[in-house]
Amino acid sequence: MEGLHRVTLSIAGCCGFNASAFVVQVNSNYLKLKAGYLFPEIARRVQAFSLANPKVDLIRLGIGDVTEPLPLACRNAMKKAIDEMGTELGFHGYGPEQGYLWLREAISKYDYQTRNCDVGADEIFVSDGSKCDSSNILDILGEGNRIAVTDPVYPVYVDSNVMAGRTGNAIDSGRYKDLSYLPINEANNFQVQIPNESLDLIYLCFPNNPTGAVATKDQLAAWVAYAEKNKALILFDAAYESFIQDESLPHSIYEIDGARNCAIEFRSFSKNAGFTGTRCAFTVIPKTLKGKALNGDQVDLWSLWNRRQSTKFNGVSYIVQRGAEAVYSEEGQKQIDSLVSFYMENAAIIRSYLIGSGFSVFGGEHAPYVWIKVPKGMSSWDFFDFWLGKANVVFHWKGG
Amino acid sequence: MEGLHRVTLSIAGCCGFNASAFVVQVNSNYLKLKAGYLFPEIARRVQAFSLANPKVDLIRLGIGDVTEPLPLACRNAMKKAIDEMGTELGFHGYGPEQGYLWLREAISKYDYQTRNCDVGADEIFVSDGSKCDSSNILDILGEGNRIAVTDPVYPVYVDSNVMAGRTGNAIDSGRYKDLSYLPINEANNFQVQIPNESLDLIYLCFPNNPTGAVATKDQLAAWVAYAEKNKALILFDAAYESFIQDESLPHSIYEIDGARNCAIEFRSFSKNAGFTGTRCAFTVIPKTLKGKALNGDQVDLWSLWNRRQSTKFNGVSYIVQRGAEAVYSEEGQKQIDSLVSFYMENAAIIRSYLIGSGFSVFGGEHAPYVWIKVPKGMSSWDFFDFWLGKANVVFHWKGG
Repeated sequence: MEGLHRVTLSIAGCCGFNASAFVVQVNSNYLKLKAGYLFPEIARRVQAFSLANPKVDLIRLGIGDVTEPLPLACRNAMKKAIDEMGTELGFHGYGPEQGYLWLREAISKYDYQTRNCDVGADEIFVSDGSKCDSSNILDILGEGNRIAVTDPVYPVYVDSNVMAGRTGNAIDSGRYKDLSYLPINEANNFQVQIPNESLDLIYLCFPNNPTGAVATKDQLAAWVAYAEKNKALILFDAAYESFIQDESLPHSIYEIDGARNCAIEFRSFSKNAGFTGTRCAFTVIPKTLKGKALNGDQVDLWSLWNRRQSTKFNGVSYIVQRGAEAVYSEEGQKQIDSLVSFYMENAAIIRSYLIGSGFSVFGGEHAPYVWIKVPKGMSSWDFFDFWLGKANVVFHWKGG
Repeated sequence: MEGLHRVTLSIAGCCGFNASAFVVQVNSNYLKLKAGYLFPEIARRVQAFSLANPKVDLIRLGIGDVTEPLPLACRNAMKKAIDEMGTELGFHGYGPEQGYLWLREAISKYDYQTRNCDVGADEIFVSDGSKCDSSNILDILGEGNRIAVTDPVYPVYVDSNVMAGRTGNAIDSGRYKDLSYLPINEANNFQVQIPNESLDLIYLCFPNNPTGAVATKDQLAAWVAYAEKNKALILFDAAYESFIQDESLPHSIYEIDGARNCAIEFRSFSKNAGFTGTRCAFTVIPKTLKGKALNGDQVDLWSLWNRRQSTKFNGVSYIVQRGAEAVYSEEGQKQIDSLVSFYMENAAIIRSYLIGSGFSVFGGEHAPYVWIKVPKGMSSWDFFDFWLGKANVVFHWKGG
């Protein structure tokens, strides 16, 4: 690198090389990223339709955002926190990078201990989003891991690996070399098959974004057994756990024995409490979780993440953390229950209408996502245009 | 890596290797980090003193936190935003990852255009903290850059480079191989000397954390000229710009011609508006800033950072951004002026007392930081213990 740099400088000196060409080296892995044709093409078709039909109000189901007002309990708690911040005694400056203990204790008690999960407040790291956590987690992991994602998948898992140089070049618009893709589709009932190969790092998301599929305790137990046998780490995204309707389904991977030795869990207030614009989430890193350094030493992942967050993060707003704490109050619990019910009613209406109209439909029972099978003889774009034109509904899809 | 993994597995199978030893590879660069003896030793001495003198109330000047209540304008704006979030029409879900345009336009207008800096709203990225931004920026930079920090320095610049594998091993508790240290001390009037060597990436912080020194326009112009000549990138931390009292001193590196081709600037609401616990900051990446990929292509740093933030970040809380916007209202400007005056009065009191007592003192004129020279014949720890014991004041220091 250094050699290359010097050669460039001497060329600049002797041959009139463009003097404005600064040569700080960039992370070239970013250049591997493919934008994908899907989102721009959807935007193009929607824009064309709107130009031709300016009076039509579109229903956009394309992104997993919430629309209902923030729960009153959260709003009241945040206003109270703002009043505190206006006083000398109640003012809060830098808080703990891990999050305030009262919030972590509430999470430990209500999200984990009530479900018999052994997750302590000191294993919880409060953050400003699961998107951040699920991509930042790569900071503490090494370059030699064999990584698997599902297909389809939440794109952040893939793109963050590409950007961190943990994959090869793009094969096509959606896939990269040196990354394993585990299909989830109708043929396997949207359950990832346990792989035959030995993987080091596996991203799982249940209830699933985007298919809406869920995993039973037995299915998660099979993953934990696989991880234990193959000494793999599971990155478990449970952002949609509050949408689960069947009491027998697990909300957390820590409901499975052994998961404390092989899994990190991402959780969020975005979907249960409508915090997509308010920003609060958390990640669980059990203190029992080990990784291996290049010199062969065992290393606690908890210590590495704690160091990462202490160095590169300064905690979530005191005001927002007070809002998140209110989610666990009696009033807050009632309000988020009714929020979740509202979104699930919408999903049920969509689902039953589609089934009644003869479509094959998946998901929407324990997740806000409904997945429709494109009818035979129709292309995915035909189907997209049909809904856009006839019902003025925009959705996203997985081509294939 | 794969080979190593397989050998480990076969050992596990045949020789009773500890079955709980999961082998996901960690980022071994974290193991290079030295905790440093300074902070733990300060904590130990303070704790011992407090145990021996339980009734003494210590004055802690050791961390750059604020203590005064949040400005009323910001509190009112945030409460209004919370009320909006309680309505169907005023609710805000996911916002732009770059920050809301109304906040970026206010920043562009009041922080830059009023000082004749050519920084557009689309070159501003709102974030939850300068600590995050100044460490995350390494995500978009390559591994071959020759990096320089000042000595003493805000530790995040160093630690984030160590964690990203951009340095060698530790030389001692504070220094690392393959990192250039540019001294700032009394001998050079706390002005970094322009280096003779060619560097690619230089961290500068003015007003300086921790010395309180400032840079004139001429001094910054010399850095910009150096960066242009050496095709280097300056990472300019201006978190303390609001403490500048002399109108002739630059608040932004973009007050210097040419800086748009060689500098990124970090700014924050933490210190001017007391947002250390509320969390809002921003980073400027001019669209004219170029880097070089491994294949020799010129790449816009703006595009890379935009991709980084879009993929790994989900924007700052709508509520907090409305609070930050209020900093630029007439009422907000008056309130932050009086906040800054309060901290500067404290610095002036400390400074004049110390000077009157015969100490050599630096800083404290355009920054809240006051830097005291340890008297001859006294060790740094003697001096620390003297202040702790006689005045019950804790401060941090740079050993030598």
